[in-house]
Amino acid sequence: MIRIGEQEIEDLLWGAAVLGAGGGGDPYLGLLMAKKAIGKYGPISLIHPLEVPDDALVISTAIIGADTILLEKIPRGNEAYASVKKLEEYLGKKAYGVMTTECGGFNSTVPFVVAAQAGLPVIDADAMGRAFPEQQMTSFHIYGLKGSPMVMTNEKSDCCVLETKDNYFLEKLCRSISVEYGGVAYFAGYSLTGKELKEASIPNTLSFSLRLGRAIREARENKQDVIEAIIETTSNSVYGRAIKLFSGKITDIKRNVVNGFMQGKTRVQGFQSFSGQTLEVCFQNENLIAYIDGKVVATVPDIVMFFDEVTGIPLPTTKLRYGYRVVVLGIPTPEIMRTEAALNIWGPKCFGYELDYVPLEILHSAYYNTAPEFAS
Amino acid sequence: MIRIGEQEIEDLLWGAAVLGAGGGGDPYLGLLMAKKAIGKYGPISLIHPLEVPDDALVISTAIIGADTILLEKIPRGNEAYASVKKLEEYLGKKAYGVMTTECGGFNSTVPFVVAAQAGLPVIDADAMGRAFPEQQMTSFHIYGLKGSPMVMTNEKSDCCVLETKDNYFLEKLCRSISVEYGGVAYFAGYSLTGKELKEASIPNTLSFSLRLGRAIREARENKQDVIEAIIETTSNSVYGRAIKLFSGKITDIKRNVVNGFMQGKTRVQGFQSFSGQTLEVCFQNENLIAYIDGKVVATVPDIVMFFDEVTGIPLPTTKLRYGYRVVVLGIPTPEIMRTEAALNIWGPKCFGYELDYVPLEILHSAYYNTAPEFAS
Repeated sequence: MIRIGEQEIEDLLWGAAVLGAGGGGDPYLGLLMAKKAIGKYGPISLIHPLEVPDDALVISTAIIGADTILLEKIPRGNEAYASVKKLEEYLGKKAYGVMTTECGGFNSTVPFVVAAQAGLPVIDADAMGRAFPEQQMTSFHIYGLKGSPMVMTNEKSDCCVLETKDNYFLEKLCRSISVEYGGVAYFAGYSLTGKELKEASIPNTLSFSLRLGRAIREARENKQDVIEAIIETTSNSVYGRAIKLFSGKITDIKRNVVNGFMQGKTRVQGFQSFSGQTLEVCFQNENLIAYIDGKVVATVPDIVMFFDEVTGIPLPTTKLRYGYRVVVLGIPTPEIMRTEAALNIWGPKCFGYELDYVPLEILHSAYYNTAPEFAS
Repeated sequence: MIRIGEQEIEDLLWGAAVLGAGGGGDPYLGLLMAKKAIGKYGPISLIHPLEVPDDALVISTAIIGADTILLEKIPRGNEAYASVKKLEEYLGKKAYGVMTTECGGFNSTVPFVVAAQAGLPVIDADAMGRAFPEQQMTSFHIYGLKGSPMVMTNEKSDCCVLETKDNYFLEKLCRSISVEYGGVAYFAGYSLTGKELKEASIPNTLSFSLRLGRAIREARENKQDVIEAIIETTSNSVYGRAIKLFSGKITDIKRNVVNGFMQGKTRVQGFQSFSGQTLEVCFQNENLIAYIDGKVVATVPDIVMFFDEVTGIPLPTTKLRYGYRVVVLGIPTPEIMRTEAALNIWGPKCFGYELDYVPLEILHSAYYNTAPEFAS
């Protein structure tokens, strides 16, 4: 059990923002909400899945929608808790703990806000090991577990309880309802037993986020290289050692809200050792595929994340702007996220890219072995 | 109490199809379903709202969606019953009876199918006095009653329970979900007490449908004029005496499924006394506004309905085809449907027409008084 106070939630959030791969919502907004909740209700317990009794009920809660809309349609603060309470009522059972389905600057905070309000612990795990845009893109789905029944709430206390046999159809319904709700909705679903949680979740992702965020903060406080600190921290984790993919200046960014998602592409002109090269990163809420000079260098589910070159602060896709000087890291995801079953759920083809998944570290070394052929 | 057997349901349906104003679903399909249910479970009791105890629960059930889609996506048969059972479960209370929200060839059958399956009576009332395309267009809404909680089911046993404060937002959510369901959904909602039912429903519309359908059948059996029989029957009812608006040949029909509705326009070239004139009728599932030579002759909520000129059979908008010879009747709606509060819910402006509602009988006599001015 880890005690999460105001300093810990701040560290955890910035670490989760890195794993968020550009999505998962704005960390600053999440931080304000979580700090306020902890300030009011006191610190929260973060417990390992193994600490949850096999027959206890765990509910996942987070937001779904377009990140750009969340920035303008600020939460009221009780939406997610309302969804969890409604789901408890619907199931006729109280939750033992709550969790998030994804790591990300906002979505990692949602269960903490609910946990503070409800007096429950948060489970140190998620179902994506990063952030993904769709409801069926979870380790729970891979293990045959259902998101349904799922409750969706909004800031006006409207509420939908969805029961579907199929997580893909659940995603369609959720997306449609989130659009009717104005682009953002708060859900509670994937109600699991402790036993299912232990089998089907990706453990330790929140405590790892805490460690990563703390390393970022300490590097900044000590005026050390933040990017180096991140690389160091990842190398000592279930994730692979982070790779510096690129550094340069953002010269173009396209962002559109399409079908309830924020979709787009970021272009970066290289600096220093990347001078003369161009990086392009396609995203759907989260960064998905990175290309250098048209050649694929990272594929989903591996994490591609932008950082402010000067401060080392992680930059979600909503925060990217023309002219920003950025460093782009790739973080290899844990092996559990790279299995065939997993790639059928969240590999490049699931997002409409006619690409096979190739591990980041292989793509990267292949790129630099073959690069001299094309160099001038 | 009226006993509804196979003959009665057939008569009732054809009468309801007339009140359906072109919508409310296909009567033939409804007839097959209701006859099968009555054949299997026996006759059904049709009871007056006054027979329902004040504290008893009455649930409304029907389909929502685009009528054209219903013709291709035939119901499995247990969807509406599933929605009623789910709502009972959600409310923690058993229904005393079921009813439809609208008169129409298909939607008038839905509660009979459910009643047969559940062993319940059907209430002799509806909430529209005809068919309307949207969920808030009900007398219940006029009386401040809520459609929520509303259960929406499909043929795959997917299910959504919607809770909204606002019937307009409920309509938006329902529509969106019906589109995700493939264009048609089965709902249970507007759960009322017997007391609310007595205040806020439009009574006797099903027994009147039965009387109207019987008159159509008897006229056909006796080779009498069906249109005359309808006019006679309406003149002795809470509805106004039907007016023959037009007869002629359909020369054009546009039908599009837009935002989950079937929208379009029917054009008819006049015959006999209407020779040289053109009728145009705009619809959104139901016929809404009729024009003769560009001049408005009928406005919603008054009923505009097409009939086969030879057989006198009512023709819903889905059944209209190029070349059909038709008679078009206008039926003045009861006074309760023409109040200011009612017209704010289902008057022409609610459908996007910049027209004031004028009672059919006034429009009609004005048209023929002023017509000579423009006659050649």
